[in-house]
Amino acid sequence: MSKDVSAHSGYVIGVDFGTLSGRAVVVRVADGSELGSAVHDYEHGVIEERLPGSEVRLGPSWALQSPNDWRAVLRNAVPKAVAAAGIRADEVVGIGTDFTACTVLPTRADGTPLCEVEGLADRPHAWPKLWKHHAAQPQADRVNAVAEERGERWLPLYGGKISSEWEFAKALQVLQEDPDSYARADRWIEAADWIVWELTGVETRNVCTAGYKGIHTEDGYPSTEYLSALDPGFADFLTKLEHPLLPLGGLAGRLTAQAAAWTGLPEGIAVAVGNVDAHVTAPAANAVQNGQMVAIMGTSTCHIMPSDQHAEVPGMCGVVRDGIVGGLWGYEAGQSAVGDIFGWFVDTSVPADYQAEAERRGINVHDYLVELAERQQVGQHGLVALDWHNGNRSVLVDHDLSAVVVGQTLATRPEDTYRALIEATAFGARRIVEAFETSGVAVHEFIVAGGLLKNRFLMQVYADVLRRPLSVIGSEQGPALGSAIHAAVAAGAYPDVPAAAAAMGRRTEGAYVPDEDRADGYDRLYAEYRELHDHFAGTAHGGSGVLHRLRAIRNEANR
Amino acid sequence: MSKDVSAHSGYVIGVDFGTLSGRAVVVRVADGSELGSAVHDYEHGVIEERLPGSEVRLGPSWALQSPNDWRAVLRNAVPKAVAAAGIRADEVVGIGTDFTACTVLPTRADGTPLCEVEGLADRPHAWPKLWKHHAAQPQADRVNAVAEERGERWLPLYGGKISSEWEFAKALQVLQEDPDSYARADRWIEAADWIVWELTGVETRNVCTAGYKGIHTEDGYPSTEYLSALDPGFADFLTKLEHPLLPLGGLAGRLTAQAAAWTGLPEGIAVAVGNVDAHVTAPAANAVQNGQMVAIMGTSTCHIMPSDQHAEVPGMCGVVRDGIVGGLWGYEAGQSAVGDIFGWFVDTSVPADYQAEAERRGINVHDYLVELAERQQVGQHGLVALDWHNGNRSVLVDHDLSAVVVGQTLATRPEDTYRALIEATAFGARRIVEAFETSGVAVHEFIVAGGLLKNRFLMQVYADVLRRPLSVIGSEQGPALGSAIHAAVAAGAYPDVPAAAAAMGRRTEGAYVPDEDRADGYDRLYAEYRELHDHFAGTAHGGSGVLHRLRAIRNEANR
Repeated sequence: MSKDVSAHSGYVIGVDFGTLSGRAVVVRVADGSELGSAVHDYEHGVIEERLPGSEVRLGPSWALQSPNDWRAVLRNAVPKAVAAAGIRADEVVGIGTDFTACTVLPTRADGTPLCEVEGLADRPHAWPKLWKHHAAQPQADRVNAVAEERGERWLPLYGGKISSEWEFAKALQVLQEDPDSYARADRWIEAADWIVWELTGVETRNVCTAGYKGIHTEDGYPSTEYLSALDPGFADFLTKLEHPLLPLGGLAGRLTAQAAAWTGLPEGIAVAVGNVDAHVTAPAANAVQNGQMVAIMGTSTCHIMPSDQHAEVPGMCGVVRDGIVGGLWGYEAGQSAVGDIFGWFVDTSVPADYQAEAERRGINVHDYLVELAERQQVGQHGLVALDWHNGNRSVLVDHDLSAVVVGQTLATRPEDTYRALIEATAFGARRIVEAFETSGVAVHEFIVAGGLLKNRFLMQVYADVLRRPLSVIGSEQGPALGSAIHAAVAAGAYPDVPAAAAAMGRRTEGAYVPDEDRADGYDRLYAEYRELHDHFAGTAHGGSGVLHRLRAIRNEANR
Repeated sequence: MSKDVSAHSGYVIGVDFGTLSGRAVVVRVADGSELGSAVHDYEHGVIEERLPGSEVRLGPSWALQSPNDWRAVLRNAVPKAVAAAGIRADEVVGIGTDFTACTVLPTRADGTPLCEVEGLADRPHAWPKLWKHHAAQPQADRVNAVAEERGERWLPLYGGKISSEWEFAKALQVLQEDPDSYARADRWIEAADWIVWELTGVETRNVCTAGYKGIHTEDGYPSTEYLSALDPGFADFLTKLEHPLLPLGGLAGRLTAQAAAWTGLPEGIAVAVGNVDAHVTAPAANAVQNGQMVAIMGTSTCHIMPSDQHAEVPGMCGVVRDGIVGGLWGYEAGQSAVGDIFGWFVDTSVPADYQAEAERRGINVHDYLVELAERQQVGQHGLVALDWHNGNRSVLVDHDLSAVVVGQTLATRPEDTYRALIEATAFGARRIVEAFETSGVAVHEFIVAGGLLKNRFLMQVYADVLRRPLSVIGSEQGPALGSAIHAAVAAGAYPDVPAAAAAMGRRTEGAYVPDEDRADGYDRLYAEYRELHDHFAGTAHGGSGVLHRLRAIRNEANR
């Protein structure tokens, strides 16, 4: 027993690299207690208009980040979290990280980001492309068209479509728009792996991003023939990717002296293999068993589920062996905008008197709208909406779709539309769950994590629409906790991720329970959502092509 | 010549009874110059929630008015207008009036409104029903179903559907919900005719409202068999309606001593036959010839056109011989919300920073949105909307339809949606013009009147969308001027309405001319509007029934 106690002693650090900031949390190995945390905002946030310190302007739909902003999290948030936790740095036995994905960058052979190479700072394509860089859609279209034409076996594993957000489309954009930068990039690497390289001094690659974002399947990467067919210049792309893949929770290496200096942590402690913010949340909720779907709900929603079934689910983002936890198939699906829709609505569509009343009451506009909306009966607003304000990731995998609101009248109030938008995202979630179940991949439990958890009304709508109880994660910093759990495994404190998750992760089952009457009402509205969904999904789905034609007209007008 | 000068000497008064106020204007008979005007707001405006001086609450979609509010216009606005004009009252040779329609009331045989009969003031059904009273939809459905079943010949003359706003549906609602009030109503009369009764002391009925709102065709009123089939108790309805019909511009009678005392005008001057605000605008624009379509654009739009062709145009509101001007068929069509949509949007969907910026600049929010919207290229916002926020009058005649907005994204700004809504109403107008032309009823000129004239951007959008020059009326008080023109005819100053319109009415031809490039762009967007229009028009039109189902769900939830 003394050996067990010893194995579970000490602390681990989890660092979560988000879209606008990075967060470090100090966690007790023995029970997952979160003792202290700190957040560091990225100086340059999302780079969308012009390169830092430069007059070079970016095109529409571009989104970059700065590697130095990421390093600043290690230098600032980690020591602050340790200080906040009130522990000694020498009690820390490991560090784990997670990142947005696919956030990807070109580097030299030694890991130097191309944008930090002398003379290349003013080249947009030398910079890391953030997950929501959407300017590679033409390249994604080609990736998909050529794969379909050649009948590539891997295509159905990604819901039949490769996203413009992923490694191949983004790299192909570099090749086609800035071949010199492409040639100078020895490596094309996920930020999730690059940050581990910074910590350990050695390049590693993780099975998760390689599988979900890099089209690495049981057959390996796509063939050279396929790459040549995409573009003859792309034939060598695998030379920038290939590297042994390490399992999640594995030991990537040991903290270097330089990284120890940045973080204030002991040199030589365990550094876990890189991981993705969504995927790493599953162990934080202790939800790494067959059929436990974790929905990380924030600006967008990512659905993560381990399963013992292997199937081709339409429109999922990918199925990867060991992609969430060893021994199970890892499924990922997503909704490309959720909280972003509500934020957009509050920013653009709520009048001054609502804002004034919320202010007078000392609550934010979201809470005020919820207060008004939750008094309504299901269907009383007469509305149904499609939640495609940022396209549709699952199940249609189409960034060129846009939103539809149906049923407004002169009596429609802001809270009506706000509620309809909340419901639309719940319908979108139900569509995804149904796609899994009709494909033979059972969803046994729906677990919610992420910032939208605090909206209790929204949670209840989801429970009613899904007609199932919702579990909720027991941590407000799920990804960072999940990274800490991986650090504990990498440090040898637990034999594997499920064991660590059982000891360190937590959730509340049945936190929200569906109401039968409301669920019946939502069944009727969901039937309308489905009809609209299929109608507006495009001609390929037997519906109208109006959204694609409007997008084409918009793009022409913007030229 | 001296006889002509004498015939054309003096002044006439036009009084326009609107939805919220009445306006009187003093006009020179010789040339139509407007010398003075005055507006009087109705004390009770639109009665929608509870009866005046009573705790009796009204149901949803009710809209009533008070007869005393109308009399107050005669007592206040008329003498003020005369004073403002700086003329002597004894120089006034006639008075004409126009009214909203179908605004209709039950009266005793002597013209006393039922709501003014001792003991009946607390009965909702004793009060005048304003045009936008929409609570008689079940009765309208029955009016239409029975007419269809019996193959009534008059049905196609009203675009195949009788509106819930019109005389029959509203009267049937009285019978079915308050049979005692129905029994006590000796007369069921348009406010347009009732106000003339107040002025002359004698009941008259005009050919215009009888034709458009009272289902009076060349075959007379609907048959007693039909009325009995609607409801056995309705068999006597014609006894409340029947009366000789007088032509527009005809002499209804002479001003009574009492009305002379109210208005300060000479007893015994000519009083013109009652008329409708929209129809009376045509002579004010000197647009009473074959194929001159006058669009009166305000909160809603009414389209009025005389034609030498008789045809069944789908979804028009009616075709009535001599209904606008003697000797031609008078067509009416309409859009049930136009300015109301923009007003609703500004009230409910524009954020505080836009309101603050407009205020800072000293302009209203509409003007600020237009300023932002007019910088855009056609189609740049990526949106198309259906303008059905208050249902669709023409060409679908369906109050249960509601609006649709397609194409919003997280980048959509208020000015984008605002512009899309303006365009949607222009597409709605184009749909109507096309319905006429494909039915063989040529539209030679499109003339705009009404409050939206002041929005120059909107006018240009209409010119571009319609691909034709727009003419605009030369008066800001078209209906009142039109009523004055009718007064001049009734007083014998001109032989007929066209002659009076030529002398007293005015318009500017080609005030807005389409731009070819923009018109081409709008052709593409209009094709999308048409596809959405037909899809959402309902199952009877081969599309989806989603809007009707959402309305049914809403109504159930509101019960």
